[in-house]
Amino acid sequence: MKKLSPAKVKDVLPEGWRFSGKTLSRKFEFKDFKAAWKFMSKIAKKADATDHHPDWSNVYNKVMIKLSTHDVGGVTNKDIALAEYINKTAE
Amino acid sequence: MKKLSPAKVKDVLPEGWRFSGKTLSRKFEFKDFKAAWKFMSKIAKKADATDHHPDWSNVYNKVMIKLSTHDVGGVTNKDIALAEYINKTAE
Repeated sequence: MKKLSPAKVKDVLPEGWRFSGKTLSRKFEFKDFKAAWKFMSKIAKKADATDHHPDWSNVYNKVMIKLSTHDVGGVTNKDIALAEYINKTAE
Repeated sequence: MKKLSPAKVKDVLPEGWRFSGKTLSRKFEFKDFKAAWKFMSKIAKKADATDHHPDWSNVYNKVMIKLSTHDVGGVTNKDIALAEYINKTAE
């Protein structure tokens, strides 16, 4: 996995995500805790299957997610793919 | 639910938890993401059942939890009970 250049990340950045230079981040808000947890559970399953995990936090109906690839100290295609999966899951 | 006095909180503080004056907090570390997620899933079920939710974050095998009762701006017996449940679950 190669670290993507900032220009490349901006080029392929999934909708709604911010790029800080080192990480992707996005906040999600749901109806209630149950809905937020259902969303997180799907992502956890995906993370486990792909061995690529989010840094995330949850307060009731809100979920804040950060993605980066620690091994390369930046954003890779793995992060882009996970961000896209997360967007699809949130719909 | 009444806010507990600081003295009372210190009196009944479950093992391993810190009391900041407004919240309880504790960090947990597991073997891997799968184990951390299993732990979180049990807590989520309890939170949903009791309608009392943690503020928490997760990075791979680490889980950081904060507990407080927003309605009263402090720590109540609900937080003590949830902290005790969390400790039992982590064992």
